[in-house]
Amino acid sequence: MSAAQPPRLYTFAGGESGAWRMARIDAIAGEPLPEAPRLAIVAGSPAPGGTRWRLRGITSNERYVTRAEKADLVAKQEGLGRTASKCAALIPIRKTAAWWTLPQDERRRIFEESSKHVRIGLKYLPAVARRLHHCRDLGESEPFDFLTWFEYAPGDAAAFDALVAELRASEEWRYVEREVDIRVVRADA
Amino acid sequence: MSAAQPPRLYTFAGGESGAWRMARIDAIAGEPLPEAPRLAIVAGSPAPGGTRWRLRGITSNERYVTRAEKADLVAKQEGLGRTASKCAALIPIRKTAAWWTLPQDERRRIFEESSKHVRIGLKYLPAVARRLHHCRDLGESEPFDFLTWFEYAPGDAAAFDALVAELRASEEWRYVEREVDIRVVRADA
Repeated sequence: MSAAQPPRLYTFAGGESGAWRMARIDAIAGEPLPEAPRLAIVAGSPAPGGTRWRLRGITSNERYVTRAEKADLVAKQEGLGRTASKCAALIPIRKTAAWWTLPQDERRRIFEESSKHVRIGLKYLPAVARRLHHCRDLGESEPFDFLTWFEYAPGDAAAFDALVAELRASEEWRYVEREVDIRVVRADA
Repeated sequence: MSAAQPPRLYTFAGGESGAWRMARIDAIAGEPLPEAPRLAIVAGSPAPGGTRWRLRGITSNERYVTRAEKADLVAKQEGLGRTASKCAALIPIRKTAAWWTLPQDERRRIFEESSKHVRIGLKYLPAVARRLHHCRDLGESEPFDFLTWFEYAPGDAAAFDALVAELRASEEWRYVEREVDIRVVRADA
């Protein structure tokens, strides 16, 4: 990677240290993740040790979003790291083998025409900022397919709950076989 | 990975050993790869050493293909490892940053509606068998985005040349910034 490019690979580590204090860690579907007092986020893939769990993910190209949807998202969204974003969530997800064998047009139809994934996300912009990381093609034995990181102000916590509830009620979520919902607050807050 | 699942990650290694003898290695665009007498293909990601270059890729879900296209492909295609397939090609490709920032609908339009990538591939089935490996999301510093492996009988070598020529003349190929064309023959042939 050239020094001029932003990082794409991130490691989320649950353990004794990190800028985020764990508030709650709930297994929504499938196997849970161990409790840990802190969450650290580091660019790259650091050497193992000193944490209870590590999850890696890489940012990548859009898989479903159209030009028009992307324009709507870009016009409304704000970046990570806002001062007011004292709350955050890490939501790792794994989809079923049945999802991954669907052709592109059928995954798109479920993702947006049925589940309105982009449309739901847009309703909560710019309050909820997000970054999506892909795991499935990092290797053969990744425990999750996606890690999504969300940041928001404490006053938007109820809106964030509504956002995830809307998505979990969608057709797309019938294909989610493992999901953990990790809520954190800034350790210095 | 459970023992019951087929491998997804493959390493292609140019060096002194391997089941395939190198016939030709041509840089079509961008930086070449070093010459090597043999090509080995192994499942997984073996420890480095003993080869001149190694390229890794992972099989993954369809990115553009529709249900109807997939049905056409599945009906016509044959698997790797046919006795008559004494010839093969490994074609590593990297696309431009401009390609990867396009939204999904525009990449699909270029891929199929303009470039007829699936339609061209279909014309050469079942003569040319193939397996696509993705590299771009294995990490931040992969030299290629895709490795495609093709197998065919010696009598279909001219047809294979026509297939790659058709694709290279397409709009999609304007987004290819690095491409190496490696032709091999079975070492026991």
